[in-house]
Amino acid sequence: MSNMTEARAGAGAAAKAAPVLTPTYEGDYVLAEHFPLESGRTLAGVTLHYAVYGRLNARKDNAVLVCHALTGSALVGSWWPEIFGRDGVLSLDHDFVICINMLGSCYGSTGPGSVDPETGFVYGPDFPLVSIRDNVRAQAQLLDSLGIRRLRLVLGGSIGGMQALEWAIHDPARVERAAIIGVAPLTAMGLALNHLQREAIQHDPEWAGGHYLPQRPPRQGLSLARQIAMLSYKSAPLFDERYGRRPNRNGEDPWGLDNQGGGLIGGRFDIAGYLDHQGERFIERFDANTYLAILRTMDTWDPLHGRGSAAEVFGRIRARLSFVGISSDWLFPPGSVRAFAETIRAAGVEADYVEMTSDHGHDAFLAEQAELVRLLQP
Amino acid sequence: MSNMTEARAGAGAAAKAAPVLTPTYEGDYVLAEHFPLESGRTLAGVTLHYAVYGRLNARKDNAVLVCHALTGSALVGSWWPEIFGRDGVLSLDHDFVICINMLGSCYGSTGPGSVDPETGFVYGPDFPLVSIRDNVRAQAQLLDSLGIRRLRLVLGGSIGGMQALEWAIHDPARVERAAIIGVAPLTAMGLALNHLQREAIQHDPEWAGGHYLPQRPPRQGLSLARQIAMLSYKSAPLFDERYGRRPNRNGEDPWGLDNQGGGLIGGRFDIAGYLDHQGERFIERFDANTYLAILRTMDTWDPLHGRGSAAEVFGRIRARLSFVGISSDWLFPPGSVRAFAETIRAAGVEADYVEMTSDHGHDAFLAEQAELVRLLQP
Repeated sequence: MSNMTEARAGAGAAAKAAPVLTPTYEGDYVLAEHFPLESGRTLAGVTLHYAVYGRLNARKDNAVLVCHALTGSALVGSWWPEIFGRDGVLSLDHDFVICINMLGSCYGSTGPGSVDPETGFVYGPDFPLVSIRDNVRAQAQLLDSLGIRRLRLVLGGSIGGMQALEWAIHDPARVERAAIIGVAPLTAMGLALNHLQREAIQHDPEWAGGHYLPQRPPRQGLSLARQIAMLSYKSAPLFDERYGRRPNRNGEDPWGLDNQGGGLIGGRFDIAGYLDHQGERFIERFDANTYLAILRTMDTWDPLHGRGSAAEVFGRIRARLSFVGISSDWLFPPGSVRAFAETIRAAGVEADYVEMTSDHGHDAFLAEQAELVRLLQP
Repeated sequence: MSNMTEARAGAGAAAKAAPVLTPTYEGDYVLAEHFPLESGRTLAGVTLHYAVYGRLNARKDNAVLVCHALTGSALVGSWWPEIFGRDGVLSLDHDFVICINMLGSCYGSTGPGSVDPETGFVYGPDFPLVSIRDNVRAQAQLLDSLGIRRLRLVLGGSIGGMQALEWAIHDPARVERAAIIGVAPLTAMGLALNHLQREAIQHDPEWAGGHYLPQRPPRQGLSLARQIAMLSYKSAPLFDERYGRRPNRNGEDPWGLDNQGGGLIGGRFDIAGYLDHQGERFIERFDANTYLAILRTMDTWDPLHGRGSAAEVFGRIRARLSFVGISSDWLFPPGSVRAFAETIRAAGVEADYVEMTSDHGHDAFLAEQAELVRLLQP
């Protein structure tokens, strides 16, 4: 989630970055008809923004679908470059890789910043709840239009993994393998973290109930939400190693006398400087209403909700599932991912579980791509 | 920290509550002279609010000092009743128990809401950084005035434990035993959590740089700060057990259509209702500038900072130290508490480490007092 936000972390992160890949094609697909949502609302004129890498072969059986995480985009070659390549999970020589921007996003698909063709106004806070299942159904229409009836692999981390599993449930015949990385239905702690991020945005006076002006977005609230999220994407050992109890690298003095805000607000520690920097970068690239929309998509995901028993729902799956837990992930703890995989396996599904050993926390699937590739090899 | 805030958690917590004890005396002590702070500033007319339980014996050698946590008060008999009693750590028959409200607090000692006698105005955001060591030096003057030259025990959890250890360093001859519960210098993750709480308060438009009107405090910001803190006081397993993914108990529907804030803000899950409730209760009893002041006291504590090597600083200690870690505490992880105890033991100090097994997280020292008492028995 923060692969684009590690500049301040120093040379370590930068040295690992693989060159960004350019998509073969990037564009929009507009659904032919009004799109009924699980919640009962209907969206008109739904646009899906997507990017593809490599070439679809004549038999159209070499497609791989990548599902992005909360603040990601369709440009998987930019944020996940290392899963491509000679030893990668994906090959530009053999695979046709497609990544579709989620509904609700601010990166090209229909979202709160889009104009509702029914009213002529921007959706803003009236943008409806779009579920993970809604996203999968919309993505299926785009794949249909491309003639793709077979997916060799669907994969994603975090909310991307939610989509990957829903694909295996939604269209069992189309999915050969799904890789579900660092995810299970949100626990109470995960729901709590999202609730506080939502509050941070809503409390910003510029939020104006979601009717903020584009030139006056709720910057402080969105920044604080991102910073809360960053805690949950990283791990305590990583923070100790990188920042410890050191004063902020710009020379502020946490013990000093003369600080902005009198005596109550001290000079920052380095971890605080890092978090503020992450917040500042984020508000340059993301929209607050989109953030709220996708948080809700994430919160409400439970593959069994309103659907039936584990045996009935997971029993449909024909794909081979690969679950990956991350040892230091406390947003989606590895124990939850493993238990989730076991529940699904108990329904007769072929479902492996492997664990990444990493201090990077939830973010490891973006921060340690080479290790992820190694684990995902067949 | 939240022993007074568990009403919504149901009968389990309420059933455990011991009867509140009434202090023998509760009152103020005003330091005779201007009080120089570690930071270089000076406070005039410093008041310490304190409460005592039991009677000081003729030899004045039966005193025990309890140091309270971040949002606590001098009324230890109200928030820690179970450590008193027949099988308790403290005995009203034999001990003279004293608890002194921290500087910076809104519960009676000099803090940001006090009038600065030098200016005639309320300190507000100009209240200076008061360190843990400053608190201990001020407390020592109060004990001197009572003729107490010997402390059988100094104990506290969280920031109270910081004070207990500083007592053993500051006045080695006076302290026989110190119990330091659920605490070590804050890690980077702890500093990060405090930073976000500070931001939540500062972003509230009513904060006004700390010059808010008493009738218009930064309620939303303080509530959000408390909710962030609550995550760190509790544990993921406890949240899963108590709240899981259940909708809020008042009947809200997280999947529903008609919600305040349009489609972006759904009905709450139960964990969100719980957190909001905690925030609402907290703003009725606490002050935002006090919260900022004591966060800074906590952040800046490192017993070695500006003082010398571990051998020099810890080598002074003559007290027997009892460290208690809490298995599910992620604010002050048990591994940090244990490592801290080992560092001090390496300086030749008698320092035991025991671990509370509890799902209650950092709060276990308040939520599971009977177990704590068992561990602290000699």
